[in-house]
Amino acid sequence: MTPTDTIVALASPSGAGAIAVIRVSGTDALKICNSVFKSIHGKDLMRQKSHTIHLGHIMDANKTLDQVLVSLFKGPHSYTGENVVEISCHGSPYIQQQIIQLLLRKGCRMAEAGEFTLRAFLNGKLDLSQAEAVADLISSENEASHQIAMQQMRGGFSNEIKLLRDELLNFASLIELELDFAEEDVEFADRSKFKELLNRIEEVLKRLLDSFAVGNVIKNGIPVAIVGEPNVGKSTLLNALLNEERAIVSEIAGTTRDAIEDELTIGGIGFRFIDTAGIRVTSDVVENIGIKKTFEKIGQAQVVLFLHSAEEFKNAEINLKSLQTEVGKIASKHPDKPLVILVNKIDILNKKERESLEQLLSHVEGSDFEIISAKTKEGIDNLKNRLLKFVNTGALRNNETIVTNTRHYDALLKALDEVQKVQFGMDNSIPGDLLAIDIRQALFHFGEITGEITSDDLLGNIFANFCIGK
Amino acid sequence: MTPTDTIVALASPSGAGAIAVIRVSGTDALKICNSVFKSIHGKDLMRQKSHTIHLGHIMDANKTLDQVLVSLFKGPHSYTGENVVEISCHGSPYIQQQIIQLLLRKGCRMAEAGEFTLRAFLNGKLDLSQAEAVADLISSENEASHQIAMQQMRGGFSNEIKLLRDELLNFASLIELELDFAEEDVEFADRSKFKELLNRIEEVLKRLLDSFAVGNVIKNGIPVAIVGEPNVGKSTLLNALLNEERAIVSEIAGTTRDAIEDELTIGGIGFRFIDTAGIRVTSDVVENIGIKKTFEKIGQAQVVLFLHSAEEFKNAEINLKSLQTEVGKIASKHPDKPLVILVNKIDILNKKERESLEQLLSHVEGSDFEIISAKTKEGIDNLKNRLLKFVNTGALRNNETIVTNTRHYDALLKALDEVQKVQFGMDNSIPGDLLAIDIRQALFHFGEITGEITSDDLLGNIFANFCIGK
Repeated sequence: MTPTDTIVALASPSGAGAIAVIRVSGTDALKICNSVFKSIHGKDLMRQKSHTIHLGHIMDANKTLDQVLVSLFKGPHSYTGENVVEISCHGSPYIQQQIIQLLLRKGCRMAEAGEFTLRAFLNGKLDLSQAEAVADLISSENEASHQIAMQQMRGGFSNEIKLLRDELLNFASLIELELDFAEEDVEFADRSKFKELLNRIEEVLKRLLDSFAVGNVIKNGIPVAIVGEPNVGKSTLLNALLNEERAIVSEIAGTTRDAIEDELTIGGIGFRFIDTAGIRVTSDVVENIGIKKTFEKIGQAQVVLFLHSAEEFKNAEINLKSLQTEVGKIASKHPDKPLVILVNKIDILNKKERESLEQLLSHVEGSDFEIISAKTKEGIDNLKNRLLKFVNTGALRNNETIVTNTRHYDALLKALDEVQKVQFGMDNSIPGDLLAIDIRQALFHFGEITGEITSDDLLGNIFANFCIGK
Repeated sequence: MTPTDTIVALASPSGAGAIAVIRVSGTDALKICNSVFKSIHGKDLMRQKSHTIHLGHIMDANKTLDQVLVSLFKGPHSYTGENVVEISCHGSPYIQQQIIQLLLRKGCRMAEAGEFTLRAFLNGKLDLSQAEAVADLISSENEASHQIAMQQMRGGFSNEIKLLRDELLNFASLIELELDFAEEDVEFADRSKFKELLNRIEEVLKRLLDSFAVGNVIKNGIPVAIVGEPNVGKSTLLNALLNEERAIVSEIAGTTRDAIEDELTIGGIGFRFIDTAGIRVTSDVVENIGIKKTFEKIGQAQVVLFLHSAEEFKNAEINLKSLQTEVGKIASKHPDKPLVILVNKIDILNKKERESLEQLLSHVEGSDFEIISAKTKEGIDNLKNRLLKFVNTGALRNNETIVTNTRHYDALLKALDEVQKVQFGMDNSIPGDLLAIDIRQALFHFGEITGEITSDDLLGNIFANFCIGK
């Protein structure tokens, strides 16, 4: 089912740059490109070796469109496994369009999103989870997500799944063989070894499923809600963390009414900061809508930073009680959410005031605290370290396989379910023919991950998320 | 003075795409890239041929940054004339940055704007006007500017200048030789042939200088002012021309108070449309500032479209007079500016009204007219054709050399001045030693264009306008 038509797309980012790369793949890629290419040395592209580069002009009849470098890759030794030509032209969007339009007239068609990688998968250059990793790799924005995508692209995850699948397949054949000899009551599959394998598979599946919680937040960024009354310095804190002026800092209380989000990489991990309105009730309708939103955002966050100003604590006794009430309010709605009380503007307190504040904060139940100054950056590094501790980076450090893909998670979950059915069946001496069905189902779900078992719908869904040109 | 340090920059546009290209150039380009590249076939880059491509991984010690394709170009057979390596990596900005940072740690430095092309010039791969054409080519946005840049990059312009310079140089040597034999009163240089050459040079210079007017508008787009009262449909007209909703169309009269500009390509030529406020005096201060601006913008435009609504002409006799007054007002301030009266909303008139309007408009002196409907697109194609006629595209069609660069124009103007001094000297039998000085000056200005004569300041100025990575 290898496709034979020739596809073309811009492979470099759109926009102007020094150079742009146009990628052509398909049976006729070389032939079509040769028909519009005039080598400065009079070379015929059809006679050149794979993995060579040639200087010349792209000609539209007698009109020169651009001077280009053309790179040749002959199938199967190419990204897609087909003949591939990459045209490196001058980076003007006008020129890019002119060359692509010329190639379309010469018999290419526009590639669909991810179609080059889809062809690489169909031609056996990548398995499905590796192909998916290509898209993850391109969208990786920090070290952690890059590392996971890289590991997956290099086959770490697929290999682990494939090994288990092969072992399971082996037992499945033996058990199905027994069915053929059912009347003779033979046992080809060693039941104790099979149980051992099932236990091992269950263990691996559980570990992989557990890694999804980490993998998912690493891929999407860890959501952190910053909650606080107007004018306590939420935007300034966000800026101190981001080291740049992303949120609008204003002296007018209540400026930040809509929750805004911003991303930041700390120690290679992505965090998404969600700036929200406070939770103190006011008569302002807009503010009260903001409070409702704040609680929603807290629900989505993995950590809550409850921000206060040191000014509030100059009259310590009064405010301790209101602080405890508010912490209680958050804790009652979201009891398991880690909560850190941040006291900002610490630079305005003297040594004695500061000591009594620390004393005070240690009495607030259900929370931890950190005193900072977003203005002078005091305590900001401590805060960053504290945030990092909320992330389980152990798996990442140990280079373990981490599942980040919802599709994989789903297939692993189903595989685990089937494996547990088989285990139950073994323990309850269920007949071999029924066991065999559950084993086949487990194998099916393993195969779904690596793409040994696919459907057009599934492939369509996966590759539609790619960018054009990949 | 060939540079020997190794420079690196992203050569593809910034942002995310399927792939990105990182360019490295310098004596150690191969060595540095080899130190971070691990071929999947265990190949040593140092031993590979020029113009070949190799698959492998970029390694930061034991950490894999990406799977990449590496293209090798060995000096002098490269863009810069030095050793060049192009790394084609996955198009994530994170990965691009990681690889560039690694290369910087390994001994590269960040390339400055245009530094790759500067090196190409210094190594004799391009002359200066060709190098300048590279930047023009990248920024070309339509067929005409692309064609001019392409011609210049292929050396059309330089060759013409070089031929003249060689001939002039030849005569200059003969005349300077005569000076050595001054007492013997010999004449090595044939005076009549020299005069003929000077006339030919003068003619070419004048043609090139004339072409600048065309070249300049083609490069920057032809400015067209759209003048009209509020609510006659300026924004709708702009949209009809642009075929998309770029200007804010509003039913509230006087919405367009600031002049806004938009670009459009018609028949391969770029036009810049300048939407302005009307010129009818009102009591509104903001409006009256707008009128002053309108006259300024008319001054900058090459063509004025004076837009009216067909509604105004339902009471024909009254408005003819005011129309003539206003046309007169524009003509008195800008007498040589082509003016086209556009009557918009023609769709609201019946056949008879329409005929009498056409009759009426033919009586307005100092202008031409066109009746259109921006809403139904009637007459828009006629208008486009009329605009195209305002551009002298003859030179473009005949593939003549067109000067677009202010620096070239300046040098050509100075060269012409010197050539005319020499001609004057010849006609007035000025001594050879004085003639020789003027000839040298003319040669100097020719040399400035192609870069045979340069200064660091000049090169700095030229290449600072390039993008990084080129």
